[in-house]
Amino acid sequence: MLHFTFLGTSSGVPTLSRNVSGLAVRNSKNKDWILVDAGEGTQHRIQQARLSLQNLIAICITHVHGDHCYGLVGLLASAGMNARSKPLIVIAPKEIQQWFEITAQLTDLHLPYSIKFIDVNEATRPQQLTDELFIQAHPLSHRVPSFAFSIYIKSTQKKIDIQVLTQLGVPKGDIWGHLKRGYDVEFEGRILKSQDFIKIQNQQIHAIIGGDNDRPELLADACKDAQLLIHEATYLQTVLDKVGKGPMHSSAKMVAEFAEQQSLDNLILTHFSPRHQDKTGQQAITEEVRQFYKGHFYLANDFDEFTLNETGQLLKIE
Amino acid sequence: MLHFTFLGTSSGVPTLSRNVSGLAVRNSKNKDWILVDAGEGTQHRIQQARLSLQNLIAICITHVHGDHCYGLVGLLASAGMNARSKPLIVIAPKEIQQWFEITAQLTDLHLPYSIKFIDVNEATRPQQLTDELFIQAHPLSHRVPSFAFSIYIKSTQKKIDIQVLTQLGVPKGDIWGHLKRGYDVEFEGRILKSQDFIKIQNQQIHAIIGGDNDRPELLADACKDAQLLIHEATYLQTVLDKVGKGPMHSSAKMVAEFAEQQSLDNLILTHFSPRHQDKTGQQAITEEVRQFYKGHFYLANDFDEFTLNETGQLLKIE
Repeated sequence: MLHFTFLGTSSGVPTLSRNVSGLAVRNSKNKDWILVDAGEGTQHRIQQARLSLQNLIAICITHVHGDHCYGLVGLLASAGMNARSKPLIVIAPKEIQQWFEITAQLTDLHLPYSIKFIDVNEATRPQQLTDELFIQAHPLSHRVPSFAFSIYIKSTQKKIDIQVLTQLGVPKGDIWGHLKRGYDVEFEGRILKSQDFIKIQNQQIHAIIGGDNDRPELLADACKDAQLLIHEATYLQTVLDKVGKGPMHSSAKMVAEFAEQQSLDNLILTHFSPRHQDKTGQQAITEEVRQFYKGHFYLANDFDEFTLNETGQLLKIE
Repeated sequence: MLHFTFLGTSSGVPTLSRNVSGLAVRNSKNKDWILVDAGEGTQHRIQQARLSLQNLIAICITHVHGDHCYGLVGLLASAGMNARSKPLIVIAPKEIQQWFEITAQLTDLHLPYSIKFIDVNEATRPQQLTDELFIQAHPLSHRVPSFAFSIYIKSTQKKIDIQVLTQLGVPKGDIWGHLKRGYDVEFEGRILKSQDFIKIQNQQIHAIIGGDNDRPELLADACKDAQLLIHEATYLQTVLDKVGKGPMHSSAKMVAEFAEQQSLDNLILTHFSPRHQDKTGQQAITEEVRQFYKGHFYLANDFDEFTLNETGQLLKIE
């Protein structure tokens, strides 16, 4: 399963109830996790969410705006002060690497672990992070280059071919177990070869986490096999109409319409303008989404946790 | 009065109860305030303390280490997004200006107000910030150049010379009032000149706020007329002895001994290592200070507020 913890869901500035962008994504089989975006104060949220910087394997930064990256260097520094030694991967626009290097130099920062920077433009080809975990970047449309990240778990499951074994009259029990574990077995005078009775099933869990973006349709291809899209919905459509296209953000309506066209099963909206963060504002966004999207959706709050399993089922952890 | 709000009291890394360094200082006659240090998350603390970035007139950064400055740019960005237009003064090591300028360039940050950077080395001469508020920097000893800031309120109070007026037989009432407001008055056939009956009293409130420092004695001269020293006490002496001198911090004992030698009236300690932040740790620091210092002291917690008045009285606001 993929496990998500929202660390910040406010657009532009932190508010008393929501921090700027940060999202922790974990393969629930182990403690390794990935951070997508690191607005200022993300390390504080990480502490509050009881996540460990020791188990962080990669940070992806969607774009260079401060509300998505100003928490990066403090977080790296704290990991260093807590004696992290494991290398860390950072997938980000190349300006982020420059910014980190200059910041480290000007602020006397010396990390006791290495960082492998991957230019996000190179990550538009899939990057394997662990045995099962893959990441791929997709270009979006914003005032600066901005990206979405596909996060995949690709796993294989060994299954014993029950149908064939039953047809052959092989009784359920030890023999099935031996075959599944890869041992050949003698049965009624003939050798049953393990490999003949094992089916390998490929499984994939695929979630897409968008950065700031005013053209959700750019994710159409990526969404074809995705079970979940997490996307910004900074404004209501009426507010976006007033604000104008300058900020280059999406309205709830724009994302909802796109998700409906794609027949997406699950949608989580985040990155709300402070003006839409109270109960009335969140209710209005919920209604706008419901009007245009018939699938399963949530508006994220800070510290909300969700799981997405192999069958594409999205659950909120209450 | 000077009014202090501690926004962060942890050394190096934030903890669940304490943020990294930040201290708001205000002349209680108006809403203008000064921020000393801006560790990551300072803008969040500012929101929580209900301080307004609109009324911030100056930021002083004691040194370039991240736990004292990584919150600077996010805070400046948020002030911009909240439509600040008033210029802002930043007194800091020159690397901070470089860091701000490069960060703004790499992260597409455009502020709608101007920043006047003053190199902290120039601020070793007193800088007048408002009619009454002055700042002066003092060099300290740390792994990088580090500074303390004297913050002064220099005010004058007009008093009518009651003794002389009484001797002359001038009755208390309108005449006294006119004289005090600067008008000359005819009394029993002679002209009483206002200027002859006005005494100007100079008043000064002086607090010193230290950056990281392993030689409190460097502040001996500055402390001569100070009513309050706020200084780091990162470790207990026993812990500093184990850690060694490398980090170049002060122990509670070092600061307490210095304050006692200076006969300082008031001392507030801050910037505690996470290992000394629980109840037992704070108790141990309290005992170490009490052993070496007979004056009035506090250990600061986040959101603690204090006032220092014209008579040098330090009060904690409960």
